[in-house]
Amino acid sequence: MNYQDFFRSELDALRADGNYRDFAELERHRGAFPSATCHNGPGEVTIWCSNDYLGMGQHPKVLEAMHEALDRTGAGAGGTRNISGTTHDHVLLEAELADLHGKEDALLFTSGYVSNWAALGTLASRIPNCVVLSDALNHASMIEGIRHSRAQKMLWKHNDLEDLEAKLASLPLEQPKLIAFESVYSMDGDISPIKEICDLADKYGAMTYLDEVHAVGLYGPRGGGIAEREGLMDRLTVIEGTLGKAFGVVGGYIAASAELCDFVRSFASGFIFTTALPPAVAAGAAASIRHLKQSNVERESQQANVAEVRARLDAMGLPHIENPSHIIPVMVGDPMKCKFISDVLLKEHGIYIQPINYPTVPKGTERLRITPSPVHSAEDIDRLVSALESLWTQCELARMPMAAQ
Amino acid sequence: MNYQDFFRSELDALRADGNYRDFAELERHRGAFPSATCHNGPGEVTIWCSNDYLGMGQHPKVLEAMHEALDRTGAGAGGTRNISGTTHDHVLLEAELADLHGKEDALLFTSGYVSNWAALGTLASRIPNCVVLSDALNHASMIEGIRHSRAQKMLWKHNDLEDLEAKLASLPLEQPKLIAFESVYSMDGDISPIKEICDLADKYGAMTYLDEVHAVGLYGPRGGGIAEREGLMDRLTVIEGTLGKAFGVVGGYIAASAELCDFVRSFASGFIFTTALPPAVAAGAAASIRHLKQSNVERESQQANVAEVRARLDAMGLPHIENPSHIIPVMVGDPMKCKFISDVLLKEHGIYIQPINYPTVPKGTERLRITPSPVHSAEDIDRLVSALESLWTQCELARMPMAAQ
Repeated sequence: MNYQDFFRSELDALRADGNYRDFAELERHRGAFPSATCHNGPGEVTIWCSNDYLGMGQHPKVLEAMHEALDRTGAGAGGTRNISGTTHDHVLLEAELADLHGKEDALLFTSGYVSNWAALGTLASRIPNCVVLSDALNHASMIEGIRHSRAQKMLWKHNDLEDLEAKLASLPLEQPKLIAFESVYSMDGDISPIKEICDLADKYGAMTYLDEVHAVGLYGPRGGGIAEREGLMDRLTVIEGTLGKAFGVVGGYIAASAELCDFVRSFASGFIFTTALPPAVAAGAAASIRHLKQSNVERESQQANVAEVRARLDAMGLPHIENPSHIIPVMVGDPMKCKFISDVLLKEHGIYIQPINYPTVPKGTERLRITPSPVHSAEDIDRLVSALESLWTQCELARMPMAAQ
Repeated sequence: MNYQDFFRSELDALRADGNYRDFAELERHRGAFPSATCHNGPGEVTIWCSNDYLGMGQHPKVLEAMHEALDRTGAGAGGTRNISGTTHDHVLLEAELADLHGKEDALLFTSGYVSNWAALGTLASRIPNCVVLSDALNHASMIEGIRHSRAQKMLWKHNDLEDLEAKLASLPLEQPKLIAFESVYSMDGDISPIKEICDLADKYGAMTYLDEVHAVGLYGPRGGGIAEREGLMDRLTVIEGTLGKAFGVVGGYIAASAELCDFVRSFASGFIFTTALPPAVAAGAAASIRHLKQSNVERESQQANVAEVRARLDAMGLPHIENPSHIIPVMVGDPMKCKFISDVLLKEHGIYIQPINYPTVPKGTERLRITPSPVHSAEDIDRLVSALESLWTQCELARMPMAAQ
């Protein structure tokens, strides 16, 4: 077999479908984000699709903590958590996270992806006869974790309580069950009915596993996420989150009972056999969390900018999914057009919004996913909306408000 | 089901077997490594089990590059590689890595674990009818990647060319094959016959995937690993490595043809759906690689210290596995005694060597894995050897040279 020919033909097929991905090579400017230099593009651009939702990646407290840790303790952790890689900074961060979610303990992973993969994979495979009830739109990392476990899996229709209850009721009451779902769904920006899911979990004896990666730092009086905002944190068995989006650094975690964290710590391959995060990353993340526990300015300003962008899109009739979160999916519905609009925005307007195509979203729902932040100015918003307006005309795209996709 | 009771009983079972892991909470002192404060232990300790093999985690060039990148561009990347998270620093690092291994391209992952899991998982699942021939002692991350692919897997006896050839010959010549193996095996420190494996790969039309995580930075005139030292880099289809051990930071990568890297980049869930490493991490790793491409001082000094520790252990008759690498596994062969020795070393001698028990090594081969570095002093070595000597007497452990385990 000619392996190179095989790789080439698979890549050609992606290109033919319009699903080949080109990465914009960016260099953000500390203190000036959302502006950045696009090294393989037109030079200076404004980023409108970052998951550094609050601009914490350039917050002086975060950077100061990272500089301090580098000077105090050096670059890497030097080992797995078990073999010389647990640092004082990791322990402090895990305490900060447990406190954020009102849980006994927390456990750090190298990424949010790994935290979902390793925690779900370990719980579902190690709890004898466990069934995982997984929301149909769960993130790839959750799907892979459940797949990895080889446990029985039941998909329930996205955010559909009736379907979830039917699935739960079909199982023996004594069989172990784990309901896996998210709070804010990244691509549509909709929010799940956490309380009602917890009620069903109680009724049918299930554990709950909530992915809050697009919510931590952003919702709740201390940034604990949607579950904090709704006063539900104590009802969830596991809250999973990330340090790489609103907190502005990198890494993932779960927060749960001491026993559950210790169990995953002791049995998860993806936790055990990997080098720990650098202590400077842990220190930066802890500083970010501490700041957002006591500051609402960033959250309020973000929400105001989100509302402003939505109102301006509505005024133009530019179609976007209505949702109660900070994510604005502007719908194009065609991979070629989506990429074309993104290319023109970048080259002619200095606006960077990556086109979101399959497999990140289903075919036919291709979109521009816009994430306004507190660091976008009124002028940034003006430029964004007028560029979209002119492109909508140029591409002859429909202008109707879309209530749901 | 009472989930908490289940977790508790599983943890109790680990404790009863002596396999429960306590993490030492360390705080390294930049510029003074291998010394560190052990926050949940006796205070000041000397670390003898780090994978920061050359002390690059405190190298001024590495730290300067990280400080510079933090000041220039901020903390996190802010997104996945596809959605605003590819930074100039990532692109420069990938070019540095491709050059290190003499390959057309390289692809970064959040960790070495993820690079093995995602690259092997993607290649083996996407190449139709692919068989993976996997060395029996491959790392957990490789095993999980192969398992994830659900491709046909054939284990061959560790480093056994005859067994590998028998397995290859049993397969149709035209069937796609991937031979997955390591250069330096972490726990025994032995080295694989790379040339002979490549010869077999050519004969039977197989791709080769070589994990060099315990070799990059350490072997070869520019730190390209064992394959560089032996002039074999061009014969390997994929070289996988880490930025978290000899390079002193964190992260993983593959280096290969442009098409192969592009293929994995385009199809690997664990690459696509995860936040990119912080640019400062990429900048620090690139600085470390650049330094070790032109400096042999660290490698020579490490090898001298490794030889010195081995000679001193031999003089005392303390059993360790003979091997051609920098890893010195001192064999205890009992989980309780291994933990006891480690505890006494820590508490009474200020020497930190994590006991290596099951599942990291097979039961009955419990050990102290010692990793001398260029930053250990002659006095550090004296203290280590005399502490081990007294503990061997106290525990009445055998004193025979062990040629192989």
